[in-house]
Amino acid sequence: MKIVVDAMGGDLAPDVVVDGAVQAARDLELEIVLVGQRGTVQAELDKHDRAGLPLTVLHASEVIAMDEHNPAAAVKALKDSSMVVAMEMIKRHEADAFFTAGHSGAALAAALFRLGRIRGIRRPALSTIFPSQTPQGYCFVLDIGANADCKPEYLAQFAIMGSVYAERVLGVLNPRVAIVSNGEEEGKGNQLVQETVPLLRATPINFVGNAEGKDIPWGVADVIVTDGFTGNVIIKLAEGVSRLLMDILKEELTSSNVSKVGALLAKPAFDSVKRRLDYREYGGAPLLGVDGVVIVGHGRSDAWAIRNGIRMAAQTVENGVLEAIKQGLAQRRG
Amino acid sequence: MKIVVDAMGGDLAPDVVVDGAVQAARDLELEIVLVGQRGTVQAELDKHDRAGLPLTVLHASEVIAMDEHNPAAAVKALKDSSMVVAMEMIKRHEADAFFTAGHSGAALAAALFRLGRIRGIRRPALSTIFPSQTPQGYCFVLDIGANADCKPEYLAQFAIMGSVYAERVLGVLNPRVAIVSNGEEEGKGNQLVQETVPLLRATPINFVGNAEGKDIPWGVADVIVTDGFTGNVIIKLAEGVSRLLMDILKEELTSSNVSKVGALLAKPAFDSVKRRLDYREYGGAPLLGVDGVVIVGHGRSDAWAIRNGIRMAAQTVENGVLEAIKQGLAQRRG
Repeated sequence: MKIVVDAMGGDLAPDVVVDGAVQAARDLELEIVLVGQRGTVQAELDKHDRAGLPLTVLHASEVIAMDEHNPAAAVKALKDSSMVVAMEMIKRHEADAFFTAGHSGAALAAALFRLGRIRGIRRPALSTIFPSQTPQGYCFVLDIGANADCKPEYLAQFAIMGSVYAERVLGVLNPRVAIVSNGEEEGKGNQLVQETVPLLRATPINFVGNAEGKDIPWGVADVIVTDGFTGNVIIKLAEGVSRLLMDILKEELTSSNVSKVGALLAKPAFDSVKRRLDYREYGGAPLLGVDGVVIVGHGRSDAWAIRNGIRMAAQTVENGVLEAIKQGLAQRRG
Repeated sequence: MKIVVDAMGGDLAPDVVVDGAVQAARDLELEIVLVGQRGTVQAELDKHDRAGLPLTVLHASEVIAMDEHNPAAAVKALKDSSMVVAMEMIKRHEADAFFTAGHSGAALAAALFRLGRIRGIRRPALSTIFPSQTPQGYCFVLDIGANADCKPEYLAQFAIMGSVYAERVLGVLNPRVAIVSNGEEEGKGNQLVQETVPLLRATPINFVGNAEGKDIPWGVADVIVTDGFTGNVIIKLAEGVSRLLMDILKEELTSSNVSKVGALLAKPAFDSVKRRLDYREYGGAPLLGVDGVVIVGHGRSDAWAIRNGIRMAAQTVENGVLEAIKQGLAQRRG
């Protein structure tokens, strides 16, 4: 299998991306094409022992910045950017999947312009894995920002795509799907939620009803469907609340010598919590609904996260996610 | 000053409500009317030494349950409920403010039916104090559930009401007001946010722009304005994420004997974190936009939270919040 990787994407690119790609090629027996400025990428590659590993470099002279404010315009203007050149490879079926830790909005725009949507899909969705007390330790949330305003039909399609992904790639049997609402009871919700619920009931998924904010980390469902505005607020708020809690805790733990000793003894426990909440193990989340496999990693990805994101791209291909989504759509129409 | 208190409202009513009311009468020199089933409330009162305290009981034979699914219907049907009888007192100006730890939806419905809205206010809002790294240690969020679907004009009015409340009662000078969005940059947002921002710019408040989810606990603003759907998801998600983090931490801390010792030594620090995140110190949050002072406490309020909620009701009256909102509205129109 051949995975194309955006060597210039991510806060720590290209060095950690190249490092992660080398690890992926070695550990996972994948063929990898690194797209980016040849000189820089090659120099990074040369730092690694990669004898016999199927790693190649494809030149792309431009880079879409991580803080680009108008990603759609950037994708149009920067035709020789690593993001666009890599996406072209997928379009021409010269690679099986694309992984980038770059600008997620640019990945979305480039995928829409170059790959287009899966036939029948109204809108693609950005997704993420979110810590939760499910048996697998997380849930799968979408949309987290591709569509600030949604229609009921979009959410029903997100539910199918999320369900397919959770089952095929995350290995969750018959995943429970819930919709975010301002109350668990049937009938609660804004207009969008109220109009979406009947569609979800009529969709061939395991729909379990409304999920309140507190239920999401509490494991009430494996797939959490919401509009891109609410989804974006959810993942960023969770980040903010975790940071606030940890900061206050740190402050309090260093406020006395006894507490400091306590904190020291408790450090392995703290580290373990950090690991359990860590996105690095999953490495990325798919851009669902576009006609190709695109996995978007966290901007702050380190080499381990990159390696795992590339693994996720391979798993998405292996498990036939695109085909399964198409079947799911047909089933619903049928 | 005379505060009317819903003796039957809250998960732990009436005993903790009566206890909190006795504390408020003693500590804060307030006249308090407890509304509820006379026999039960009187029996609770008799457990306390309340010589000379201005506490009276007003009989109301019915109770609106905490888990009532249709609060508006309940308010209409249960005319002799503590919630409705207390609200009638405010309407007749027989008391200055109303505090309840009961069903917030029922408080909203009862206030709308009995008190009506402040002239010019399109929709009332439920609010809450939310932990944040502001100088005062929290921000003020509204709406958190009264209006699942909002129009830009509603949000602009929420901004005025929140700003007045933060300044008058929470003591924040020239409070910074932000609107929740899916990106900090101007122009980001769903349609509602994009249409609201120009109104906020034209409103005589200290509008500081968009707040992403992560910025809310991070102290970016003193007043956070959002629709009732998103607001509800925000406060409940924060509760869920905190609980998940603390549960995982507890689990990890008890997984080895060394960690256990660490946890023991660190306990005062943990307790301090808990206190800093504790709603009990504020006791309640106002229902803003109705023509009367109504403070809604957390359903799980204990006696200390009830006492502080009653204090907040008194402060809301003392600081002329209703008048100031009316002035703020007039200023905006002028």
